[in-house]
Amino acid sequence: MSKSTITIALDAMGGDHGPAVVLAGAQTALERHPDMRFVLFGQEDAVRPVLDGLPKLRERSTFHHCDVSIRMDDKPSQALRQGRYKSSMWKAIEAVKTGEADVAVSAGNTGALMAMAKFCLRTMANIERPAIAAIWPTLRGESIVLDVGATIGADSQQLIDFSVMGAAMSRALFQIDRPTVGLLNIGVEEVKGQEDIREAGRLMKETPIDGLDYRGFVEGTDLGKGTVDVVVTEGFTGNIALKTAEGTARQIGSYLKAAMTRTWMAKLGYLLAKSAFDRLRDKMDPRKVNGGVFLGLNGVVIKSHGGSDAEGTAAAIDVAYAMAANGLLAKIESDLGRVYANEVSVPLEGEAAGSEEVAP
Amino acid sequence: MSKSTITIALDAMGGDHGPAVVLAGAQTALERHPDMRFVLFGQEDAVRPVLDGLPKLRERSTFHHCDVSIRMDDKPSQALRQGRYKSSMWKAIEAVKTGEADVAVSAGNTGALMAMAKFCLRTMANIERPAIAAIWPTLRGESIVLDVGATIGADSQQLIDFSVMGAAMSRALFQIDRPTVGLLNIGVEEVKGQEDIREAGRLMKETPIDGLDYRGFVEGTDLGKGTVDVVVTEGFTGNIALKTAEGTARQIGSYLKAAMTRTWMAKLGYLLAKSAFDRLRDKMDPRKVNGGVFLGLNGVVIKSHGGSDAEGTAAAIDVAYAMAANGLLAKIESDLGRVYANEVSVPLEGEAAGSEEVAP
Repeated sequence: MSKSTITIALDAMGGDHGPAVVLAGAQTALERHPDMRFVLFGQEDAVRPVLDGLPKLRERSTFHHCDVSIRMDDKPSQALRQGRYKSSMWKAIEAVKTGEADVAVSAGNTGALMAMAKFCLRTMANIERPAIAAIWPTLRGESIVLDVGATIGADSQQLIDFSVMGAAMSRALFQIDRPTVGLLNIGVEEVKGQEDIREAGRLMKETPIDGLDYRGFVEGTDLGKGTVDVVVTEGFTGNIALKTAEGTARQIGSYLKAAMTRTWMAKLGYLLAKSAFDRLRDKMDPRKVNGGVFLGLNGVVIKSHGGSDAEGTAAAIDVAYAMAANGLLAKIESDLGRVYANEVSVPLEGEAAGSEEVAP
Repeated sequence: MSKSTITIALDAMGGDHGPAVVLAGAQTALERHPDMRFVLFGQEDAVRPVLDGLPKLRERSTFHHCDVSIRMDDKPSQALRQGRYKSSMWKAIEAVKTGEADVAVSAGNTGALMAMAKFCLRTMANIERPAIAAIWPTLRGESIVLDVGATIGADSQQLIDFSVMGAAMSRALFQIDRPTVGLLNIGVEEVKGQEDIREAGRLMKETPIDGLDYRGFVEGTDLGKGTVDVVVTEGFTGNIALKTAEGTARQIGSYLKAAMTRTWMAKLGYLLAKSAFDRLRDKMDPRKVNGGVFLGLNGVVIKSHGGSDAEGTAAAIDVAYAMAANGLLAKIESDLGRVYANEVSVPLEGEAAGSEEVAP
């Protein structure tokens, strides 16, 4: 748990609904973690009036005015060109770099946020590419799935890095000592084209990694089952899987609504079972698991869903709080350090010891 | 519609439950299409007793004994080595080649079935790789998604081939004149690594293809919405998406069941709304959309789900019937012919006219 106050750098301008929703979410999160502090970044005329209406939040916040706000449809390169060093998004990330804050949260556009986070914080030693980790509701509880869209494609070493980082996040967020890890694959045998996944699996079997329990390949159906604590895949497939699951949940929600309003009997049944439906809605509520965690950078940045309401924003801030309070960054650094130290003494097949991937 | 009797070649030994379920499914399908005929392949001692108990089916069937049955866990290479020329699976496919049947159906293992279908029927002219097309239930009805796992990876020309074949299937199965087609992609701009998808999109925009309406990129959430009639992707992503959707549907089904049995009020509500729940179950019933269609071969083969019950098997046979009755193969051949004829006159960028891909 937290030893000192956790400070959240918050991009007040991010998201589809702007400061009113972002700050309301911050206030809700603050009620749950009263020791939390905020550094807020945004345009004064938009943020001040909202903040003045939320005295509890105002009391625990420092506000910095920023002229520039990144729009939801700005391209990453455009955002970086126009918003670097001065936008609310940049400033929130920079507060993590300078140590003013422990973690940054933004509901701004993912591409821009990732581009700025990479530019500002840089990737960790040994890590070539960061990943976005999602919290996935399952029949067993919650799993972590990464990468859900930071970059397309991943080689075997990157998949192993994702495994290590995902396991560290599982420990930090869910206090699981030795999380189980699976590589997302398809069930067809003797199939060509995914040598990287097979190679990553082979390496993790041959050289077990401290702090994670590698369980082999998992399939798309295992995501909802929660077969493993951490599911690892490259960003294209991970993004498609995440959005397919979201779409399927919404689709079934629509079917259910249509079915329950079709006849008077069904409507009556619905009323009697309302508390059950409320529980179900709660289970399926995407706001409960809001917060994509950027992993592999020298600082933790949380992406809140652009369309989030206050409750969703609060959930993302909760994740940020947990990540900071449980020392996610230090856990990842120490775990990666062990993996890469190990790699020097046990050279990978076909690779010389002291290869380029091993930091000096 | 069908001009003459449709004959289905059926691998009676495929699937987890064997001939009893496969043949019961065939009988159900026969009741819906009484003009249908079957050629059945399987082990006499297993099939005969079942067939004797289904006199209607027996009357419309020819049975051929096969010594060898492919097991669900046989590897494709193993299946091909041991089952070529003699297994019930092979014989069902071969019946399509010889013209004894119009289409083959098997619930045997996908890898083995695809390996045998490729070996026996060969790919169509211009087609390098076959695809498996799935029928995907959506809020608008049903879409076709391909490839869901025949092969991993696809270049731009293969994605275009999939688009043409998927559109032909949409016309044959759903009588949609000019199906809308989307390429599955992720929403992040300026992302590297999926040049093939971008290139395929660019080509379909620049040179519209007769008989399909290309609508650009779609995302994972569009699958359940039914944004387009045909969603095109390479086999790894398609398989993960399909299984993720199946898993999510099952997950929500479990939540719903748990919620509805938790309190007496909920149970009572459930009883009153039972017909609504039955409708919902019906909507979500994976058996209703059973049948993966192998496209791109010189003959149509339908893969029924290994775990299907009789109703699921019947659904796969319904799909087979529709594909044959509506001349899917001829539609694909003529559409591909037009596309490749077109390509000669409009050479692809960076490719000489009369490149290798253009058949003489």
